[in-house]
Order: sequence, then C-alpha cells, then structure tokens
Amino acid sequence: MLSSSRKVTVIGGGSWATALVKILAENPGTKVNWWLRDKKDVEHIKRHHYNPSYLSDVYINPKRVTPYESLTSALKGTEYVVLAIPAAFVKDPFSGISGKIFEKKQVISAVKGLLPDDHLLVTDWLARDFSVSKENLSAIGGPCHAEEVALGKQSYLTIASHSLESAAKVASILTCRFVSAGASDDLYGVEYAAVMKNIIAMACGITHGLGYGDNFQAVLVSNAMSEIEHFLNAVDPRPRQLSASAYLGDLLVTAYSQFSRNRLFGNMIGRGYSVAAAQLEMKMIAEGYYAARSIHRINLRHGVPMPISEMVYQVIYENVPPATAVEALKKALH
Amino acid sequence: MLSSSRKVTVIGGGSWATALVKILAENPGTKVNWWLRDKKDVEHIKRHHYNPSYLSDVYINPKRVTPYESLTSALKGTEYVVLAIPAAFVKDPFSGISGKIFEKKQVISAVKGLLPDDHLLVTDWLARDFSVSKENLSAIGGPCHAEEVALGKQSYLTIASHSLESAAKVASILTCRFVSAGASDDLYGVEYAAVMKNIIAMACGITHGLGYGDNFQAVLVSNAMSEIEHFLNAVDPRPRQLSASAYLGDLLVTAYSQFSRNRLFGNMIGRGYSVAAAQLEMKMIAEGYYAARSIHRINLRHGVPMPISEMVYQVIYENVPPATAVEALKKALH
Repeated sequence: MLSSSRKVTVIGGGSWATALVKILAENPGTKVNWWLRDKKDVEHIKRHHYNPSYLSDVYINPKRVTPYESLTSALKGTEYVVLAIPAAFVKDPFSGISGKIFEKKQVISAVKGLLPDDHLLVTDWLARDFSVSKENLSAIGGPCHAEEVALGKQSYLTIASHSLESAAKVASILTCRFVSAGASDDLYGVEYAAVMKNIIAMACGITHGLGYGDNFQAVLVSNAMSEIEHFLNAVDPRPRQLSASAYLGDLLVTAYSQFSRNRLFGNMIGRGYSVAAAQLEMKMIAEGYYAARSIHRINLRHGVPMPISEMVYQVIYENVPPATAVEALKKALH
Repeated sequence: MLSSSRKVTVIGGGSWATALVKILAENPGTKVNWWLRDKKDVEHIKRHHYNPSYLSDVYINPKRVTPYESLTSALKGTEYVVLAIPAAFVKDPFSGISGKIFEKKQVISAVKGLLPDDHLLVTDWLARDFSVSKENLSAIGGPCHAEEVALGKQSYLTIASHSLESAAKVASILTCRFVSAGASDDLYGVEYAAVMKNIIAMACGITHGLGYGDNFQAVLVSNAMSEIEHFLNAVDPRPRQLSASAYLGDLLVTAYSQFSRNRLFGNMIGRGYSVAAAQLEMKMIAEGYYAARSIHRINLRHGVPMPISEMVYQVIYENVPPATAVEALKKALH
C-alpha cells in the first residue's frame, strides 16, 4: 500500500468499473473521481453511496469517491485515468471532446476487448487518437470477477505496460487488502489474451450446449492455450510464460464460470438458439461476439492455425451449424 | 480403429477399470479378460452383464468381455495388460504370484499415483519387481472422468511410454467411437503430472473450504502449472508443452470437478474437519493424501520451490492450520 496521495479518474458505470472504484478507494491516500454516463446513477451514489445499477451492495465512501456527470470535470487535475467501458462503447464518452484530455496522465485500460470496427486494441486506439505515449499506457489483466471483488475475496491483477516502471506504478495503486497486483511489460500479450479468452469461453459454451462434457472442455481449454500462444507469437513475438495468471488464469476464470456472459451466449447457440435470438434473450451482446470477428480479421494477415476461434467464427458469422463445426473441430484437438 | 484381433487383460474392478473395459470392448477385434477382486462382482457381471459396484449402467458385452476370479487365468494368452487399481492397493493382487507374469506383454498403467511406501512411479515398480522392459511399459494419461466415458462422451487420452512406437500401439487399441488417444514419449512427465494434479485439487478444495473464490482458484491453478513444470524439469529434464491435454487438461478436469475426491477431501479440511475425521466421513482415502507425502519426499532430493504442494503437505502431515498455511501461500502466488 501507498502512503502518499494521488488522484484517479474512473470512467464507466458497470460492474467492473464499480469493482475498480472499490479497490482504488481502499487506499486512504487515493481520491477517486468517478464518471458515470447515467445521471440518475450519479445522483443515487451522491445521496445513498451505492451504485444502484451494478454491485449495489458495495459501499462507495464519499470521503474518497466523488461521482461526476461531466467527463471533463472528472478528469480535471487527476494523474491516473482508468477506462472501464465495454469495447463496443468505449468511444462514446469522448465524442466532441478534445484529443488532449489525457495529456500527462497515466491512462489505464480496464477494457477487455478490441474496438469492434477498427479491430484495434484499446491501448493502440488511445495512442492513435489521443497521442498517449507508451510510458503513459497500461492495461489491467488477470483473473478477476467483479462480483468477488465486491465481496472482498482475495484476487490478483496483472498490470501490463510497454514500460515495466509504469506498470509497477499503476500496480501499486491497485494493490490493497484483498488485491495483489503485479507488473508485466507484455502489454499486447496481456490485452490479446484477455480478448481471446472470451472467444474460448464461447467455444466452451457452444460445446457444453451441444452436450459435450468436462473431459472435452479440459481438452478444449488445453488446446486453446496453444492457440493463444501461437497467435501471440505471430502478433508480438517474445518469450512469455503462458501459464501465468494474466493468460491462463484469466482464461480459466472465464471458461469455467457459470456467470460468464460469453459462455452463456455460446451455450444458447449450442442448444439451438440463433445468434439473433440469443442476443435478444440476453438483452446484451457478449464481448466474444465482436472478438471472434476481430481476431479472425487480424489473423488473415498472420494465418495462424486457430481451429477453436475459427469454429466460433464460423458458427456466429457464417451460419455453420454448431454440431457440424464442432464435429470438425474434434479432429483437430488432441 | 483396428481391424485385426487382440487380447487384453484389465486388472481392477473400480470405475476407471470399468470405463477402460467399455472403451476396449468398443473395438470388434478386441477380447477383454477382466479380473476383479470381488467374486460376487465377477458372478454378477457373468450373469447380468453389468458391474454392480461401479458405473453400473455400462453394459458389459459378454461376446467381448470375460470376467475372471483368477488373475493367472485372466492373464493367460493376452498381449496387453491394463493395470487399473488405486496406487495404495496396486501390489495386493500380485502377492505370491511369480515375477514373470508380465513376460512378453505390454503392461499399461492406468494408475494415477505413486506407490505410497516406496514413493515409486507404478511403471518404475513394474520395471523393478516384474522386469518389464522399457518398450513394454506405458501409462494412460489425460483428462478423463470415468463417469463421462460411461455416457460415451467424447474424451481424449494420452498414452505415454519411453518408446513412442509402443505408445502409438497402445493408443490404437484405446481409440474408439468416443475416445481419441494420442501418443507421447514423456512417460515420467505424464505420470508425475497425473500424481501432482491430485495434490493441486486438494489445494483447490482447502482454499475453497476456507472461503477463497474463483479468482483465487484461477491463480492457484496457474501457479500450479509453474510448480509442476519446475518439478518435472528437476526429475526428468526435457522440453515439454505443459499446456497439452495430458498435463494441463488432466489438472483442469480434476481441479474444477465437483466430483473429485481429492478436491472434496481438501474442502472438508478447509472447512475445519481434521484429517482423520475427513477420511472417516469419506470412507476412503483420497489419492492426493499419499501423493502429497511422496512428492514432498522426492523433492527433498531436488529442492524445487513448491509452495502449493508444500501448503498441502503442511496442513495434512504437520498439523499447520489451513488458514495459516494459505495465508502464507497467498504471498507466494502472483
């Protein structure tokens, strides 16, 4: 834990944003400016000290956290910005806002996804559109259900940045009583792995929905680790320990979670729902839906054999019946 | 699948033995001699074609499977022997039997454990006490709940032998409609990983019993993979892809299973049962109980840092309170 004081802006009103506000506010020296899109949520938090929409049992300490309606006000005078919005909507709060808003700030992506139209990592988008420098960019990885953070259960995060020094700095503000945060210099690896795990979780859901069992899922996840490794070696070759928490751990917590939206979405597809019907039923779009297309597109340049991600892509985007696609996949696994 | 015919003896009457009999008998060319310790089970299978004690919904085809009371009769004229008995009891059927019974036979260990008094791998014991040669020794690895085999769910096995040719031969007799078996020449790696996964499953149970959540378990399993890797590098250094099904997959199917006896045993310890009370309540001894001691002993020679296995050892054998042991472990994880 830290003794000196610092100011952090958190952008986003969902469960992961709420969990991160809770973690940050554990440190007595941290002041959090919290921007939420929904004015009613801002008012509710100011008055009742709980986010009415997500993790509504988490107490928001008014001495350390100030909710904001205005993004520019929320960003004024802070040194750190944590971006915690689903990738599909991450551009929305910034329309009509100057490209200089992140100047001299550490910008931390807590977004697990690629920008769906640009097929870009969030940190690459931040560098391109907001000129955030490498030393000021990092991403939060690691296996971390927001629901367990709400309960104060021991969790581990990995903060990745091109600069190990920056990663360590950010890790220090995210370490608290129940969170241990480590530093990594594998920004791309951690970000891509976080994206790919959602596709794998969809594959787990699809096969589960079709009636495949735990033996099959264990093999699917094992093979997925090779698939992720080969993809990462193509997009950003470097030695990495893929069994580390930020890669394997993040995949496990998603692939084996009953609560994963991506797994649930896949499960509905496996059980016979159409993509459109599954989306309607879930009232939301699982991140893996976009991720499957983006990774497919990016891999057109690399040509890495990715039978699991391709299975998901074919089922979701090319109307291949799940049973047929998985029958073909079975032969590629070992 | 194979077209020519062959004879296989399966030794053991439990659920894994029953599942293996089912797999072997899927091939029209395979005749199975099945030895079971319990005479009543032998009679029941002869008369009703079901094992009354385990997986009792699996039909035992009398045209392909013959149950035996006498071990020497069951072994007569067969080319393959599959040993499927818990490690703690694996010596029992052979007391007073000649050391030459396995002469010129392929002996396949389906035992996941070390001999608890000798701290020996089953294949090393077979080589020592029965002079089985390297080319005639193999072990079955891979993520495979017997219960899912009973249901005919798609599963994958890895057959490991010092001789890749032998492994491939054995793999071919274990490949069937719903099982895909691959070959590996990493006999020690596959056998040790199968032993260690039971210790890790106990660690998962202990921490779950103490109230740690899914985030923590994902980190525990990720760190366990490094621990397994370092141990294997010490006892049998060679390059291996630890994310393969035989290592990671086998660990996953055990660590994430609600049905794992090792996880259940750990869970009871974590919730405050004494070791003796947990054993009484379970009416059996989990394999990880012996494995934790054997791996600890073997590692005295190597000195590999193994914080997870050591935590289990301290809790089970040195009366360290689980909460204290896990509190110390927390700091070693990342």
